[in-house]
Amino acid sequence: MKSPVALTILKIGGNVLADADQLHQTLALFTRLAGPAILVHGGGRRADELLAALGHKAQMVNGRRLTDAPTLEVVTMVYAGLLNKQLVALLQAQGCNALGVSGADGNLLRAHQRPVQDIDYGFAGDIDAVNVPAFQALLGARFAPVCCAITHDGAGQLLNTNADTIAASIATALAPHYAVALWYCFEKPGVLLDINDDQSVIPVLDPARYAELKSQGVIHSGMLPKLDNAFATLQQGVQEVQLGNLASLTRQKATRIIFSID
Amino acid sequence: MKSPVALTILKIGGNVLADADQLHQTLALFTRLAGPAILVHGGGRRADELLAALGHKAQMVNGRRLTDAPTLEVVTMVYAGLLNKQLVALLQAQGCNALGVSGADGNLLRAHQRPVQDIDYGFAGDIDAVNVPAFQALLGARFAPVCCAITHDGAGQLLNTNADTIAASIATALAPHYAVALWYCFEKPGVLLDINDDQSVIPVLDPARYAELKSQGVIHSGMLPKLDNAFATLQQGVQEVQLGNLASLTRQKATRIIFSID
Repeated sequence: MKSPVALTILKIGGNVLADADQLHQTLALFTRLAGPAILVHGGGRRADELLAALGHKAQMVNGRRLTDAPTLEVVTMVYAGLLNKQLVALLQAQGCNALGVSGADGNLLRAHQRPVQDIDYGFAGDIDAVNVPAFQALLGARFAPVCCAITHDGAGQLLNTNADTIAASIATALAPHYAVALWYCFEKPGVLLDINDDQSVIPVLDPARYAELKSQGVIHSGMLPKLDNAFATLQQGVQEVQLGNLASLTRQKATRIIFSID
Repeated sequence: MKSPVALTILKIGGNVLADADQLHQTLALFTRLAGPAILVHGGGRRADELLAALGHKAQMVNGRRLTDAPTLEVVTMVYAGLLNKQLVALLQAQGCNALGVSGADGNLLRAHQRPVQDIDYGFAGDIDAVNVPAFQALLGARFAPVCCAITHDGAGQLLNTNADTIAASIATALAPHYAVALWYCFEKPGVLLDINDDQSVIPVLDPARYAELKSQGVIHSGMLPKLDNAFATLQQGVQEVQLGNLASLTRQKATRIIFSID
């Protein structure tokens, strides 16, 4: 059996987008990645700024945005318009054949509006389907897709979807076709043994070690959903997940999440 | 020799985008077009509204926008973000495999910033190159590109570019590879003998008849650059240009611009 082509999916967070120098270097890292690659980006800070300038207020519940109709317009403008096209133009300038997309484009990511239970999240979308042939067509034509955090429901409605979730969904959907590495670039150099010590990066985590550190209370709060998601993507065939920042990912000093250490 | 595949390029103006019902029907027309097709859209009105809401003022000279840095951010958000993604989502809902792009995406349209002569147009871009293989790759993968009026300079700078010009540039660049029909959907049913009588559509115009009507003063002012451009695209291999509105284009009652009537 032919070994599958390596595919790296790099998710970059708001802090990377906010710093021009860091952004430039992060895009250089993406451009240097061997083989096909997909960039996924958020952009919440810029959306908050535009909301404020327009006299709206960003409403968050449990770290998730309440997306009313004016907020959906703003995030569509900021994520799919301003940030996505700036990223694409900067990547093209570095020689990376970037092509910016939302989940509506080519029906790449179909979602449904989150049903109202305790909280009405508005136009927030939970992903139903990743269009694998469409991603393959873009990658096969040597485009590097740059995905913003906007999806659609297939009936004409755009939806706001968490960028971490988009990256994980694409990774698992493409795992049967590529050797997928999923990299999360965030503000910390990795998963830390001591949240206040950036030198305390855990180099490798497998499920056994994760369970151990969780039971000891070393890993807690905000890192838990990120890592639960990371292990879930491994169970669905993703080969490797890395969590770190620009410096640690570049020097291969980020935390590697793998299925088994041996 | 094999006859080339037909390709329709439909340019829609701001008035189409402003009316939900007319937009729906125009997108239905686009979806029904046989063979590969490309949609090109403007969106100046929505950009003006957002500029106003942010306390900027749209500045126009000779019908062209002065694009300072804040204006470039706004048009990028409105054209490439809000309108482009709404159009794509609506087309996808109708079964058209739309994929929204700016000129930066896949380096589809490279431009240079217009040099300052009498007027500094700011970040206005004049097109240098249409990336024919990239358009062929998208069309070959059965995507229907939806192009907004944003280009890039290849060095990381986004630029604001006239949508009519984008449509004409794509049409002429693809003319050696497809039998290109270029349709301009605007507010009038066609080129009129009497500007106040929508029944006075000129069915067919060739260069001889155009010269005659121009010399008689029947065709004047705003229509002249549109028609000069239309004839220029024919000279560069485009097979047919049509100018009309939704109703006239649908019923084949728009003005057809052709190279020769016989």
